[in-house]
Amino acid sequence: MSSSALQISMVVSSRSSDFLGSHSFCATNSLRSRNVSLPGRMAGVCRCGSAPSAEETAFKTKVARNANMAKLQAGYLFPEALFVAMLTFMQSQSSMYHLAAVFEILSGQMMLRFCWEHNAVSFLILNNFLIYLLNLVNMLARRRSAHMSKYPDAKVISLGIGDTTEPIPDDITSAMAMVFSQHALLLNLYSAIQRAHSLGTFEGYSGYGAEQGDKKLRANIALTYYKDLGIEETDIFVSDGAKCDISRLQLLFGSQVKMAVQDPSYPAYVDSSVIMGQTGLFQKDIEKYANIEYMRCVPENDFFPDLSSISQVDVIYFCSPNNPTGSTATRDQLTQLVQFAKDNGSIIVFDSAYAMYISDDSPRSIYEIPGAKEVAIEISSFSKYAGFTGVRLGWTVVPKELLFADGFPVAKDFNRIVSTCFNGASNIAQAGGLACLSPAGLKAMQNTINFYKENTKIIVDTFTSLGFNVYGGKNAPYVWVQFPGRSSWDVFTEILEKGYVVITPGSGFGPGGESFIRVSAFGHRENILEAAKRIKQLYQ
Amino acid sequence: MSSSALQISMVVSSRSSDFLGSHSFCATNSLRSRNVSLPGRMAGVCRCGSAPSAEETAFKTKVARNANMAKLQAGYLFPEALFVAMLTFMQSQSSMYHLAAVFEILSGQMMLRFCWEHNAVSFLILNNFLIYLLNLVNMLARRRSAHMSKYPDAKVISLGIGDTTEPIPDDITSAMAMVFSQHALLLNLYSAIQRAHSLGTFEGYSGYGAEQGDKKLRANIALTYYKDLGIEETDIFVSDGAKCDISRLQLLFGSQVKMAVQDPSYPAYVDSSVIMGQTGLFQKDIEKYANIEYMRCVPENDFFPDLSSISQVDVIYFCSPNNPTGSTATRDQLTQLVQFAKDNGSIIVFDSAYAMYISDDSPRSIYEIPGAKEVAIEISSFSKYAGFTGVRLGWTVVPKELLFADGFPVAKDFNRIVSTCFNGASNIAQAGGLACLSPAGLKAMQNTINFYKENTKIIVDTFTSLGFNVYGGKNAPYVWVQFPGRSSWDVFTEILEKGYVVITPGSGFGPGGESFIRVSAFGHRENILEAAKRIKQLYQ
Repeated sequence: MSSSALQISMVVSSRSSDFLGSHSFCATNSLRSRNVSLPGRMAGVCRCGSAPSAEETAFKTKVARNANMAKLQAGYLFPEALFVAMLTFMQSQSSMYHLAAVFEILSGQMMLRFCWEHNAVSFLILNNFLIYLLNLVNMLARRRSAHMSKYPDAKVISLGIGDTTEPIPDDITSAMAMVFSQHALLLNLYSAIQRAHSLGTFEGYSGYGAEQGDKKLRANIALTYYKDLGIEETDIFVSDGAKCDISRLQLLFGSQVKMAVQDPSYPAYVDSSVIMGQTGLFQKDIEKYANIEYMRCVPENDFFPDLSSISQVDVIYFCSPNNPTGSTATRDQLTQLVQFAKDNGSIIVFDSAYAMYISDDSPRSIYEIPGAKEVAIEISSFSKYAGFTGVRLGWTVVPKELLFADGFPVAKDFNRIVSTCFNGASNIAQAGGLACLSPAGLKAMQNTINFYKENTKIIVDTFTSLGFNVYGGKNAPYVWVQFPGRSSWDVFTEILEKGYVVITPGSGFGPGGESFIRVSAFGHRENILEAAKRIKQLYQ
Repeated sequence: MSSSALQISMVVSSRSSDFLGSHSFCATNSLRSRNVSLPGRMAGVCRCGSAPSAEETAFKTKVARNANMAKLQAGYLFPEALFVAMLTFMQSQSSMYHLAAVFEILSGQMMLRFCWEHNAVSFLILNNFLIYLLNLVNMLARRRSAHMSKYPDAKVISLGIGDTTEPIPDDITSAMAMVFSQHALLLNLYSAIQRAHSLGTFEGYSGYGAEQGDKKLRANIALTYYKDLGIEETDIFVSDGAKCDISRLQLLFGSQVKMAVQDPSYPAYVDSSVIMGQTGLFQKDIEKYANIEYMRCVPENDFFPDLSSISQVDVIYFCSPNNPTGSTATRDQLTQLVQFAKDNGSIIVFDSAYAMYISDDSPRSIYEIPGAKEVAIEISSFSKYAGFTGVRLGWTVVPKELLFADGFPVAKDFNRIVSTCFNGASNIAQAGGLACLSPAGLKAMQNTINFYKENTKIIVDTFTSLGFNVYGGKNAPYVWVQFPGRSSWDVFTEILEKGYVVITPGSGFGPGGESFIRVSAFGHRENILEAAKRIKQLYQ
């Protein structure tokens, strides 16, 4: 394996130095200097030590690099590791000739892009990159002789990324299209959508909107998701997605707060905290940043943290249904959480981006818990309901009852952040959001969600039938499977190399995810079924 | 005047306390406590001192308010002052009966919204609010007897806000509409747009995109605006608008840098710096924040700062063509600026959002200056080219040659910011951006720009013919008119009350804007002509 890796390394090096030469800096040097902790078996790849170092030759400004940015761990988000794993896999599945041919075809662009971005990537870069690599692998697989694979004609299937796959429902896309159309009559078969206006006409054109979002959309969100919970239109801030508002909330809180986060959790909470300067350095031995309270969520505590062991914290990020574990907090648990926040004077940032996946009586909003308006912000999104991951639309609830220690309303400062650092979600996306909340739109979203929930059941049943401990899935599009005593990365490699299926190693979501894998239910049905079949063959 | 203001105050107070009662906090208390510096003649309005204070009764978290947020000056951005001015104007133009009736009609919602948001508003809130108020004023004007006004049948015209008014060109809207349409055949009269795909079909659906933006769009931006300047696709980061990227750049730089800014300038530079904690407190006597270098730009220095007087700074925000002055830096001046940055090791953030308005040989990009890639970031936007203010699309160029003091590439950290704190611009908006850069789209954008430039000429000619010192306008959609020895606010009030035209007081852009007004050329032609007529009547 190591000699194979070396061979790839040589290919990469020679190509990348060609492409990097004119730019006079070597990304991989920086990678190395930042002590990225790739899994050991994948280290030593992608070095380009012979290229001249930027530090020696190029003009440098006198502006000091933001120390908080330097704290970020490239390896923590595992794109490099995944990349190397994929490369290794590609090589194991093909001849050097084919690999070289592929690199030739790519004209080095992929490598250049990777070298440029590889210590500054996120899950979503990874998504595109992975798909890119998968296509390569599939191309190679088609060329391979049959005996090299159990699935000579099958593609590698990715259940690794939490990106939706099903089309956006008609009622919603047509509302968005109508925003532009000067040919609204052609589209008036969608008579349900009356409000859409035409940006291409004098009558319909509108420029800057309110940064907080369209008034009618805000009112509809309040009515649809917070009816009888005391949340009003003015408490709703429409965003271009939950991830973006997580960072805006960090700006709001500033650098002097201490955060707590579920472990494992969606990495944007921790990373944005690091960027804001709320944390200390990354401690490699425990795989945690200093000055963040990691609230361990494991089967032993029903994925709900032992609150009595949590120190005084300012902001508690809590996601339910959870990404990645798929677990959903019960009413009792959330009542404990709200009480804990009240007792300690903390602010909860409750991420409900998967709430519509809940099919039992678990709370869909933190505001179902009495008193939550005084301690909690809620962030949510249309991404996983309507397939809006690329359209970009979400919202954040900041109740006017939520006050800082000096009595100043949090919402007023958040409003200022939104007004200064944001200019509102795209008016087209907002037209789509309004259509999502129409009766037809709500029904269409629920149909899409039900489809993914059927996928989830297939995945849960597959792993359960094989005797694994399977968590999540019931109220979430994620299935969390335990491989006791094994490394998440080893399991990842095993499933990729032997089953041609990509899942996400649990340790990428924090140290509490070690020995788990996350299997995403976002996929076309035939892919889910095929992946289930291969996993059964692999583990039965 | 003061007794009139008092009467309004009473109306406002009694209504707002009604609406605020159930929310148990009084925004105007907070406003007062934050020492907002409204122009003296408008002070004393909107008090609701009798409402119970939140500080006394409500639950408060123990989370300390971010001290940087508390530094922000509500009055600096003048929405309150404008609001009060408009209210005063409304009252001066109508009977108390009508005013009360209007408030009744509004059911207090406007006041509630204002009281809630009025110390956390920006120009864009102001925009909506102003339009709202203008509609009210116009309604009142229609009811008024003719002798109360010089223009009994005319509407108040706003040339105060830099928001575009002309429709988005067909080629561009259709490209965006096609992203959704399952009925692409109906739209295939727009045969030029081949790339649009359908989010409503399995084939066309796409989820998360790259946070940096669509590869083809990045390549097209590089080709269209930076051809032969050495800027490549990978240097381009597509954004949801320049304003949003200004804040992301602040996140990138962190709290330890010192910034310089043109005075006057677009307020987002300063405000985002304050939020990041780069500044000290606002110094009321000089109307400046501590630890910001204000680079005075006035007619005496051809609106280009005396660089020899600038202290050591890390980041220099420079907008050309400038908002608000409309001035455009020459090649010589920008060469000086780049040299200054090189000598001092500073980073320039060059805002070129109005570059397509340049009709002489002034540089359209900072990268036209040799060596700029080593010291400059450039932010830009489709907003003022294609009317995308509401669609939300822009870009930022971070050349890979730009390095921090330790040699680390700035672009790599910015890439990490974009990946962690952003999820890419809406795929629909990006489809529109691609259409903007097609031959037809470029032509359509230029037509729109030419239309606004004709507006600009009308405004420039109007003020010039009246003997004013008129600046800007040639390469920008803004005209900057000097009223020597007078307060911007007094001029604002005069033009509003006597001419029924809304402009923007120059002092809202910084102390260097005092005694100037900004007149925006974004407006329908008939409004521009009517406003010109009224201003001529007023000042001839």
